[in-house]
Amino acid sequence: MKISARNMLKGKIVGIKKGATTAHVSLEVNGTIVMASITNDAVDELKLTVGMEAAAIVKASDILIAVED
Amino acid sequence: MKISARNMLKGKIVGIKKGATTAHVSLEVNGTIVMASITNDAVDELKLTVGMEAAAIVKASDILIAVED
Amino acid sequence: MKISARNMLKGKIVGIKKGATTAHVSLEVNGTIVMASITNDAVDELKLTVGMEAAAIVKASDILIAVED
Amino acid sequence: MKISARNMLKGKIVGIKKGATTAHVSLEVNGTIVMASITNDAVDELKLTVGMEAAAIVKASDILIAVED
Amino acid sequence: MKISARNMLKGKIVGIKKGATTAHVSLEVNGTIVMASITNDAVDELKLTVGMEAAAIVKASDILIAVED
Amino acid sequence: MKISARNMLKGKIVGIKKGATTAHVSLEVNGTIVMASITNDAVDELKLTVGMEAAAIVKASDILIAVED
Repeated sequence: MKISARNMLKGKIVGIKKGATTAHVSLEVNGTIVMASITNDAVDELKLTVGMEAAAIVKASDILIAVED
Repeated sequence: MKISARNMLKGKIVGIKKGATTAHVSLEVNGTIVMASITNDAVDELKLTVGMEAAAIVKASDILIAVED
Repeated sequence: MKISARNMLKGKIVGIKKGATTAHVSLEVNGTIVMASITNDAVDELKLTVGMEAAAIVKASDILIAVED
Repeated sequence: MKISARNMLKGKIVGIKKGATTAHVSLEVNGTIVMASITNDAVDELKLTVGMEAAAIVKASDILIAVED
Repeated sequence: MKISARNMLKGKIVGIKKGATTAHVSLEVNGTIVMASITNDAVDELKLTVGMEAAAIVKASDILIAVED
Repeated sequence: MKISARNMLKGKIVGIKKGATTAHVSLEVNGTIVMASITNDAVDELKLTVGMEAAAIVKASDILIAVED
Protein backbone atom coordinates (compact mmCIF):
# COMPACT_ATOMS: atom_id res chain seq x y z
CA MET A 1 0.00 0.00 0.00
CA LYS A 2 1.20 3.50 -0.83
CA ILE A 3 -0.37 6.56 0.73
CA SER A 4 -0.69 10.21 -0.19
CA ALA A 5 0.72 11.57 3.08
CA ARG A 6 3.98 13.40 2.36
CA ASN A 7 5.70 12.53 5.62
CA MET A 8 6.75 9.12 6.87
CA LEU A 9 9.29 9.13 9.68
CA LYS A 10 10.73 5.70 10.35
CA GLY A 11 11.84 4.74 13.83
CA LYS A 12 11.43 2.36 16.73
CA ILE A 13 8.68 2.29 19.35
CA VAL A 14 10.10 3.33 22.72
CA GLY A 15 6.91 3.77 24.73
CA ILE A 16 3.22 2.84 24.73
CA LYS A 17 0.82 4.23 27.31
CA LYS A 18 -2.77 3.11 27.07
CA GLY A 19 -5.53 5.25 28.55
CA ALA A 20 -9.23 4.44 28.75
CA THR A 21 -9.78 4.80 24.98
CA THR A 22 -6.73 6.70 23.71
CA ALA A 23 -3.10 5.54 23.73
CA HIS A 24 0.15 7.47 23.41
CA VAL A 25 2.80 5.79 21.32
CA SER A 26 6.34 7.20 21.32
CA LEU A 27 8.83 6.53 18.54
CA GLU A 28 12.50 7.31 18.42
CA VAL A 29 13.22 8.75 14.99
CA ASN A 30 16.88 9.65 14.34
CA GLY A 31 17.39 10.42 18.01
CA THR A 32 14.22 12.52 18.34
CA ILE A 33 11.09 11.34 20.16
CA VAL A 34 7.87 11.57 18.16
CA MET A 35 4.60 11.02 20.03
CA ALA A 36 1.38 9.86 18.43
CA SER A 37 -2.03 9.76 20.03
CA ILE A 38 -4.00 6.85 18.55
CA THR A 39 -6.84 4.59 19.66
CA ASN A 40 -6.24 1.66 22.02
CA ASP A 41 -7.94 -0.43 19.32
CA ALA A 42 -5.19 0.46 16.84
CA VAL A 43 -2.47 -0.49 19.35
CA ASP A 44 -4.11 -3.89 19.73
CA GLU A 45 -4.83 -4.50 16.07
CA LEU A 46 -1.32 -3.57 14.94
CA LYS A 47 0.11 -5.51 17.92
CA LEU A 48 2.38 -2.58 18.75
CA THR A 49 5.08 -3.34 21.29
CA VAL A 50 8.12 -1.47 22.59
CA GLY A 51 11.18 -2.19 20.44
CA MET A 52 9.15 -2.70 17.26
CA GLU A 53 10.00 -0.82 14.07
CA ALA A 54 7.27 1.59 13.04
CA ALA A 55 6.72 4.83 11.17
CA ALA A 56 4.96 8.07 12.05
CA ILE A 57 2.83 9.29 9.16
CA VAL A 58 1.75 12.93 8.93
CA LYS A 59 -0.25 14.71 6.27
CA ALA A 60 1.44 17.91 5.05
CA SER A 61 -1.65 19.94 5.97
CA ASP A 62 -1.28 18.90 9.62
CA ILE A 63 2.15 20.47 10.03
CA LEU A 64 2.76 23.97 11.36
CA ILE A 65 6.00 25.84 10.77
CA ALA A 66 7.67 27.75 13.60
CA VAL A 67 10.61 30.13 13.46
CA GLU A 68 12.50 32.04 16.12
CA ASP A 69 11.48 35.67 16.66
CA MET B 1 5.91 31.01 23.80
CA LYS B 2 5.52 27.35 24.66
CA ILE B 3 2.93 25.19 22.97
CA SER B 4 1.08 22.01 23.83
CA ALA B 5 1.99 20.13 20.63
CA ARG B 6 4.16 17.13 21.53
CA ASN B 7 6.28 17.20 18.41
CA MET B 8 8.73 19.85 17.26
CA LEU B 9 11.19 18.75 14.61
CA LYS B 10 13.98 21.28 14.08
CA GLY B 11 15.58 21.65 10.69
CA LYS B 12 16.37 23.95 7.80
CA ILE B 13 14.06 25.11 5.02
CA VAL B 14 15.13 23.53 1.72
CA GLY B 15 12.17 24.40 -0.47
CA ILE B 16 9.21 26.78 -0.70
CA LYS B 17 6.61 26.46 -3.42
CA LYS B 18 3.78 28.95 -3.41
CA GLY B 19 0.50 28.11 -5.07
CA ALA B 20 -2.52 30.38 -5.51
CA THR B 21 -3.40 30.33 -1.78
CA THR B 22 -1.50 27.36 -0.35
CA ALA B 23 2.27 26.92 -0.12
CA HIS B 24 4.42 23.84 0.36
CA VAL B 25 7.39 24.31 2.65
CA SER B 26 10.03 21.56 2.85
CA LEU B 27 12.40 21.19 5.78
CA GLU B 28 15.41 18.98 6.12
CA VAL B 29 15.27 17.41 9.56
CA ASN B 30 18.17 15.11 10.42
CA GLY B 31 18.55 14.13 6.78
CA THR B 32 14.83 13.53 6.22
CA ILE B 33 12.59 15.86 4.23
CA VAL B 34 9.43 17.00 6.03
CA MET B 35 6.80 18.82 3.98
CA ALA B 36 4.25 21.23 5.39
CA SER B 37 1.28 22.68 3.59
CA ILE B 38 0.60 26.17 4.97
CA THR B 39 -0.99 29.39 3.72
CA ASN B 40 0.91 31.78 1.45
CA ASP B 41 0.08 34.42 4.06
CA ALA B 42 2.05 32.51 6.69
CA VAL B 43 5.05 32.22 4.37
CA ASP B 44 5.00 35.99 3.93
CA GLU B 45 4.36 36.90 7.55
CA LEU B 46 7.10 34.61 8.88
CA LYS B 47 9.39 35.75 6.03
CA LEU B 48 10.29 32.15 5.30
CA THR B 49 13.22 31.69 2.93
CA VAL B 50 15.29 28.72 1.80
CA GLY B 51 18.22 28.14 4.14
CA MET B 52 16.41 29.50 7.22
CA GLU B 53 16.22 27.47 10.40
CA ALA B 54 12.67 26.41 11.24
CA ALA B 55 10.72 23.71 13.03
CA ALA B 56 7.85 21.47 11.99
CA ILE B 57 5.23 21.27 14.73
CA VAL B 58 2.74 18.41 14.85
CA LYS B 59 0.03 17.64 17.38
CA ALA B 60 0.16 14.04 18.64
CA SER B 61 -3.42 13.45 17.51
CA ASP B 62 -2.43 14.20 13.89
CA ILE B 63 0.07 11.35 13.68
CA LEU B 64 -0.73 7.88 12.34
CA ILE B 65 1.40 4.86 13.11
CA ALA B 66 2.31 2.40 10.36
CA VAL B 67 4.00 -0.99 10.64
CA GLU B 68 5.10 -3.52 8.08
CA ASP B 69 2.72 -6.45 7.44
CA MET C 1 1.93 -1.85 5.54
CA LYS C 2 -0.77 -1.59 8.16
CA ILE C 3 -1.78 1.72 9.65
CA SER C 4 -3.41 2.86 12.88
CA ALA C 5 -6.18 4.89 11.23
CA ARG C 6 -9.53 3.32 12.07
CA ASN C 7 -11.24 4.15 8.80
CA MET C 8 -10.43 2.93 5.33
CA LEU C 9 -13.16 3.39 2.74
CA LYS C 10 -12.47 1.51 -0.47
CA GLY C 11 -13.70 2.85 -3.77
CA LYS C 12 -12.81 4.04 -7.22
CA ILE C 13 -11.41 7.40 -8.28
CA VAL C 14 -14.03 9.35 -10.23
CA GLY C 15 -12.39 12.76 -10.37
CA ILE C 16 -9.04 14.50 -10.01
CA LYS C 17 -8.71 18.27 -10.12
CA LYS C 18 -5.26 19.70 -9.72
CA GLY C 19 -4.79 23.26 -8.47
CA ALA C 20 -1.53 25.18 -8.16
CA THR C 21 -0.29 23.07 -5.22
CA THR C 22 -3.38 21.26 -3.90
CA ALA C 23 -5.49 18.66 -5.71
CA HIS C 24 -9.01 17.40 -5.09
CA VAL C 25 -9.49 13.69 -5.57
CA SER C 26 -13.01 12.25 -5.57
CA LEU C 27 -13.75 8.61 -4.86
CA GLU C 28 -16.98 6.73 -5.27
CA VAL C 29 -17.42 4.59 -2.18
CA ASN C 30 -20.56 2.43 -2.14
CA GLY C 31 -22.43 4.99 -4.23
CA THR C 32 -21.30 7.96 -2.13
CA ILE C 33 -18.73 10.52 -3.29
CA VAL C 34 -15.84 11.11 -0.88
CA MET C 35 -13.54 14.04 -1.61
CA ALA C 36 -9.96 14.31 -0.44
CA SER C 37 -7.73 17.34 -0.63
CA ILE C 38 -4.13 16.20 -1.10
CA THR C 39 -0.94 17.62 -2.61
CA ASN C 40 -0.35 17.60 -6.36
CA ASP C 41 2.90 15.82 -5.51
CA ALA C 42 0.97 12.92 -4.01
CA VAL C 43 -1.25 12.65 -7.09
CA ASP C 44 1.87 12.38 -9.25
CA GLU C 45 3.80 10.01 -7.00
CA LEU C 46 0.87 7.62 -6.58
CA LYS C 47 0.09 7.97 -10.30
CA LEU C 48 -3.58 8.51 -9.48
CA THR C 49 -5.92 8.35 -12.46
CA VAL C 50 -9.69 8.31 -12.89
CA GLY C 51 -11.00 4.75 -12.76
CA MET C 52 -8.27 3.49 -10.43
CA GLU C 53 -9.14 1.65 -7.23
CA ALA C 54 -8.16 3.57 -4.14
CA ALA C 55 -9.11 4.03 -0.51
CA ALA C 56 -9.89 7.06 1.63
CA ILE C 57 -8.16 6.85 5.00
CA VAL C 58 -9.39 8.90 7.94
CA LYS C 59 -8.15 9.00 11.52
CA ALA C 60 -10.96 8.61 14.07
CA SER C 61 -10.03 11.92 15.69
CA ASP C 62 -10.72 13.76 12.42
CA ILE C 63 -14.38 12.72 12.28
CA LEU C 64 -17.24 14.83 13.63
CA ILE C 65 -20.64 13.36 14.40
CA ALA C 66 -23.81 15.16 13.36
CA VAL C 67 -27.41 14.42 14.26
CA GLU C 68 -30.69 15.98 13.26
CA ASP C 69 -32.18 18.50 15.71
CA MET D 1 -27.19 24.63 9.24
CA LYS D 2 -24.99 23.84 6.26
CA ILE D 3 -21.29 23.24 6.63
CA SER D 4 -18.26 23.50 4.36
CA ALA D 5 -16.99 19.95 4.98
CA ARG D 6 -17.14 18.02 1.71
CA ASN D 7 -17.96 14.65 3.26
CA MET D 8 -21.05 13.61 5.17
CA LEU D 9 -21.57 9.88 5.51
CA LYS D 10 -25.02 9.01 6.82
CA GLY D 11 -25.52 5.93 8.93
CA LYS D 12 -26.67 4.49 12.22
CA ILE D 13 -24.81 4.41 15.53
CA VAL D 14 -23.80 0.84 16.36
CA GLY D 15 -21.43 1.44 19.25
CA ILE D 16 -20.46 4.03 21.86
CA LYS D 17 -17.53 3.51 24.21
CA LYS D 18 -16.81 6.26 26.69
CA GLY D 19 -13.35 6.66 28.15
CA ALA D 20 -12.25 9.11 30.82
CA THR D 21 -12.56 12.15 28.53
CA THR D 22 -12.70 10.72 24.99
CA ALA D 23 -15.41 8.51 23.49
CA HIS D 24 -15.39 6.25 20.44
CA VAL D 25 -18.58 6.29 18.41
CA SER D 26 -19.06 3.70 15.67
CA LEU D 27 -21.47 4.19 12.79
CA GLU D 28 -22.59 1.70 10.21
CA VAL D 29 -22.51 3.47 6.85
CA ASN D 30 -23.63 1.36 3.87
CA GLY D 31 -22.36 -1.78 5.55
CA THR D 32 -18.99 -0.28 6.54
CA ILE D 33 -18.08 0.68 10.11
CA VAL D 34 -16.83 4.23 10.56
CA MET D 35 -15.31 5.14 13.92
CA ALA D 36 -15.13 8.65 15.33
CA SER D 37 -13.21 9.77 18.38
CA ILE D 38 -15.10 12.63 20.03
CA THR D 39 -15.40 14.11 23.52
CA ASN D 40 -17.61 12.50 26.16
CA ASP D 41 -19.21 15.93 26.45
CA ALA D 42 -20.34 15.76 22.82
CA VAL D 43 -21.86 12.30 23.36
CA ASP D 44 -23.88 13.68 26.26
CA GLU D 45 -24.90 16.94 24.62
CA LEU D 46 -26.04 15.27 21.40
CA LYS D 47 -27.67 12.48 23.47
CA LEU D 48 -26.07 9.88 21.21
CA THR D 49 -27.39 6.34 21.68
CA VAL D 50 -26.95 3.07 19.83
CA GLY D 51 -29.51 2.73 17.04
CA MET D 52 -29.76 6.47 16.43
CA GLU D 53 -29.30 7.90 12.93
CA ALA D 54 -26.21 10.07 12.63
CA ALA D 55 -23.65 11.23 10.11
CA ALA D 56 -19.87 11.21 10.07
CA ILE D 57 -18.50 14.52 8.82
CA VAL D 58 -14.97 14.79 7.45
CA LYS D 59 -13.14 17.77 6.00
CA ALA D 60 -11.50 16.98 2.64
CA SER D 61 -8.09 18.02 3.99
CA ASP D 62 -8.30 15.29 6.66
CA ILE D 63 -8.51 12.46 4.13
CA LEU D 64 -5.50 10.49 2.88
CA ILE D 65 -5.59 8.45 -0.31
CA ALA D 66 -4.10 4.96 -0.40
CA VAL D 67 -3.50 2.69 -3.37
CA GLU D 68 -2.15 -0.81 -3.72
CA ASP D 69 1.53 -1.17 -4.64
CA MET E 1 -28.38 19.63 12.61
CA LYS E 2 -26.25 19.49 15.73
CA ILE E 3 -22.60 18.51 15.61
CA SER E 4 -20.10 17.06 18.04
CA ALA E 5 -17.45 19.77 17.56
CA ARG E 6 -16.99 21.65 20.84
CA ASN E 7 -16.23 25.02 19.29
CA MET E 8 -18.50 27.22 17.20
CA LEU E 9 -17.42 30.82 16.87
CA LYS E 10 -20.11 33.01 15.35
CA GLY E 11 -19.16 36.00 13.26
CA LYS E 12 -19.40 37.72 9.93
CA ILE E 13 -17.49 37.00 6.74
CA VAL E 14 -15.04 39.82 6.01
CA GLY E 15 -12.96 38.27 3.27
CA ILE E 16 -12.99 35.47 0.70
CA LYS E 17 -9.96 34.70 -1.45
CA LYS E 18 -10.30 31.87 -3.93
CA GLY E 19 -7.22 30.05 -5.16
CA ALA E 20 -7.06 27.35 -7.81
CA THR E 21 -8.75 24.73 -5.58
CA THR E 22 -8.50 26.13 -2.04
CA ALA E 23 -10.13 29.28 -0.68
CA HIS E 24 -9.37 31.38 2.38
CA VAL E 25 -12.42 32.68 4.22
CA SER E 26 -11.95 35.29 6.97
CA LEU E 27 -14.52 35.86 9.68
CA GLU E 28 -14.67 38.63 12.22
CA VAL E 29 -15.55 37.03 15.55
CA ASN E 30 -15.87 39.46 18.47
CA GLY E 31 -13.30 41.78 16.93
CA THR E 32 -10.82 39.01 16.12
CA ILE E 33 -10.17 37.71 12.62
CA VAL E 34 -10.48 33.93 12.20
CA MET E 35 -9.25 32.44 8.93
CA ALA E 36 -10.45 29.15 7.48
CA SER E 37 -8.98 27.31 4.55
CA ILE E 38 -11.77 25.44 2.74
CA THR E 39 -12.44 24.18 -0.78
CA ASN E 40 -13.62 26.52 -3.53
CA ASP E 41 -16.47 24.04 -3.95
CA ALA E 42 -17.65 24.72 -0.40
CA VAL E 43 -17.57 28.49 -0.98
CA ASP E 44 -19.78 28.02 -4.03
CA GLU E 45 -22.17 25.50 -2.50
CA LEU E 46 -22.72 27.53 0.66
CA LYS E 47 -22.91 30.71 -1.47
CA LEU E 48 -20.54 32.46 0.91
CA THR E 49 -20.25 36.22 0.42
CA VAL E 50 -18.61 39.04 2.33
CA GLY E 51 -20.97 40.44 4.97
CA MET E 52 -22.78 37.14 5.52
CA GLU E 53 -23.17 35.71 9.02
CA ALA E 54 -21.28 32.47 9.48
CA ALA E 55 -19.58 30.39 12.14
CA ALA E 56 -16.13 28.85 12.43
CA ILE E 57 -16.34 25.28 13.70
CA VAL E 58 -13.32 23.60 15.27
CA LYS E 59 -12.96 20.15 16.81
CA ALA E 60 -11.36 20.24 20.27
CA SER E 61 -8.62 17.87 19.11
CA ASP E 62 -7.52 20.40 16.48
CA ILE E 63 -6.69 23.11 19.02
CA LEU E 64 -3.22 23.69 20.47
CA ILE E 65 -2.67 25.62 23.67
CA ALA E 66 0.13 28.20 23.90
CA VAL E 67 1.41 30.05 26.95
CA GLU E 68 4.08 32.69 27.41
CA ASP E 69 7.51 31.49 28.56
CA MET F 1 8.79 31.85 18.45
CA LYS F 2 6.37 32.69 15.66
CA ILE F 3 4.17 30.06 14.05
CA SER F 4 2.43 29.64 10.73
CA ALA F 5 -1.03 28.96 12.18
CA ARG F 6 -3.36 31.75 11.15
CA ASN F 7 -5.48 31.75 14.30
CA MET F 8 -4.44 32.59 17.83
CA LEU F 9 -7.27 33.30 20.23
CA LYS F 10 -6.06 34.78 23.50
CA GLY F 11 -7.94 34.11 26.71
CA LYS F 12 -7.84 32.72 30.20
CA ILE F 13 -8.00 29.09 31.29
CA VAL F 14 -11.30 28.42 33.05
CA GLY F 15 -11.24 24.64 33.26
CA ILE F 16 -8.89 21.66 33.07
CA LYS F 17 -10.15 18.09 33.14
CA LYS F 18 -7.58 15.35 32.94
CA GLY F 19 -8.55 11.91 31.69
CA ALA F 20 -6.36 8.81 31.54
CA THR F 21 -4.18 10.17 28.72
CA THR F 22 -6.16 13.08 27.23
CA ALA F 23 -7.10 16.35 28.95
CA HIS F 24 -9.75 18.94 28.12
CA VAL F 25 -8.68 22.53 28.62
CA SER F 26 -11.30 25.29 28.44
CA LEU F 27 -10.42 28.90 27.72
CA GLU F 28 -12.62 31.94 27.96
CA VAL F 29 -11.95 34.03 24.86
CA ASN F 30 -13.90 37.30 24.65
CA GLY F 31 -16.78 35.77 26.59
CA THR F 32 -16.85 32.56 24.53
CA ILE F 33 -15.65 29.19 25.81
CA VAL F 34 -13.11 27.43 23.59
CA MET F 35 -12.28 23.81 24.42
CA ALA F 36 -9.05 22.08 23.47
CA SER F 37 -8.29 18.41 23.76
CA ILE F 38 -4.58 17.97 24.45
CA THR F 39 -2.35 15.37 26.15
CA ASN F 40 -2.04 15.20 29.93
CA ASP F 41 1.70 15.47 29.31
CA ALA F 42 1.25 18.90 27.72
CA VAL F 43 -0.86 20.10 30.67
CA ASP F 44 1.96 19.09 33.01
CA GLU F 45 4.82 20.41 30.92
CA LEU F 46 3.18 23.81 30.34
CA LYS F 47 2.08 23.84 34.01
CA LEU F 48 -1.42 24.88 32.94
CA THR F 49 -3.67 26.02 35.78
CA VAL F 50 -7.10 27.61 35.97
CA GLY F 51 -6.82 31.39 35.83
CA MET F 52 -3.68 31.38 33.70
CA GLU F 53 -3.52 33.37 30.46
CA ALA F 54 -3.23 31.18 27.40
CA ALA F 55 -4.05 31.10 23.72
CA ALA F 56 -5.88 28.64 21.51
CA ILE F 57 -4.01 28.08 18.26
CA VAL F 58 -5.78 26.67 15.21
CA LYS F 59 -4.47 26.02 11.71
CA ALA F 60 -6.72 27.51 9.00
CA SER F 61 -7.13 24.09 7.38
CA ASP F 62 -8.72 22.74 10.59
CA ILE F 63 -11.63 25.18 10.52
CA LEU F 64 -15.01 24.43 8.97
CA ILE F 65 -17.45 27.15 8.00
CA ALA F 66 -21.14 26.83 8.85
CA VAL F 67 -24.05 28.97 7.72
CA GLU F 68 -27.73 28.90 8.47
CA ASP F 69 -29.98 27.18 5.93
